[in-house]
Amino acid sequence: MSKGEQTHQMIVERAASVFSRQGYFGSSLHDLMQETGLEKGGIYNHFHSKDELALEAFDYAIKLTWSYIEREVSGKTHAPDRLHAMLLGYRRLMEELPLPGGCPLLNTAIEADDAHPALRQRARQAMTNWRTWIQRNVARGIAAGEIRPETDGDLLATIIISTVEGAVMMSKLYDDSTHIQRAVDYLATYLDTTVRL
Amino acid sequence: MSKGEQTHQMIVERAASVFSRQGYFGSSLHDLMQETGLEKGGIYNHFHSKDELALEAFDYAIKLTWSYIEREVSGKTHAPDRLHAMLLGYRRLMEELPLPGGCPLLNTAIEADDAHPALRQRARQAMTNWRTWIQRNVARGIAAGEIRPETDGDLLATIIISTVEGAVMMSKLYDDSTHIQRAVDYLATYLDTTVRL
Repeated sequence: MSKGEQTHQMIVERAASVFSRQGYFGSSLHDLMQETGLEKGGIYNHFHSKDELALEAFDYAIKLTWSYIEREVSGKTHAPDRLHAMLLGYRRLMEELPLPGGCPLLNTAIEADDAHPALRQRARQAMTNWRTWIQRNVARGIAAGEIRPETDGDLLATIIISTVEGAVMMSKLYDDSTHIQRAVDYLATYLDTTVRL
Repeated sequence: MSKGEQTHQMIVERAASVFSRQGYFGSSLHDLMQETGLEKGGIYNHFHSKDELALEAFDYAIKLTWSYIEREVSGKTHAPDRLHAMLLGYRRLMEELPLPGGCPLLNTAIEADDAHPALRQRARQAMTNWRTWIQRNVARGIAAGEIRPETDGDLLATIIISTVEGAVMMSKLYDDSTHIQRAVDYLATYLDTTVRL
């Protein structure tokens, strides 16, 4: 990477951390300047606006999040094991907290309403990708005789994502990982007793 | 109510609406002035700071939220019926959306971190009240032989609250009530098959 590309990437990563802690609307240009050690011009040299930076920071945060899931899922071939590994990856993400604010998808979904339609669209796409990943695994598992044929992949995606995201919210609120642990254990049991064939 | 009290209450209600749509940090004094039709001095006549108004607006929003649940629960005496009615009240709240931004507890839990400890404390208390309500109903249901004795009320509270709050986040993100409906149906079935005796 050139020096310019390195600076660009550094801004994105530190902005993702600021946005994760304080939210997009709660983060000022001053906060971003302080976190990056750059002057206003040094940031605007790389991004036309805070909104443009927010979109890149969101993409980076989602990529980082998904890398935790991929690491756990990697090498697992059976669909129920892949779904289970996804839960473990998500729990590990919440324990290690590479982004201090928790789940970037949850935070952005709550924050980005009509005030930031491009960011909301990005969050919708990330959510749809996650749901599609679950649905595709369910379909493969049914075809391979590993998952009960009556399983509704779209419904399962809603239940899994709702439960883990809601539990992250509770754990963040109390600063106590109990809730995310309970949710992951509960969903793992649910997968074993109700989804796995 | 005196005219002053009426104005105070009007400010709280409209501020709750603004905060619910835009978040506490995303709402400026200008937004609050526009929504209330008051000048800066007219607002600061009733509240020392935006933070003080935020706390009152949060309390109002929680009271409004809880009134939906109480309306459904009222008259139900059996514990499993009361838990079921709570879910229906929450779904109705999300359909009627008296506060346009969705669930004030979810929004505040995500937004109020170290930047606003008093608001975070208020959100923790509201969450604890909700969890305690569920736990108390489970304990009564077990004592009355209506709920399976092995049911862990604290664990059930985490699962119910996580699932509905996560589903609200998904429904808000897509502007589609499917997710909250699925979550409520799923939890109602869970109560009937796993909790009710």
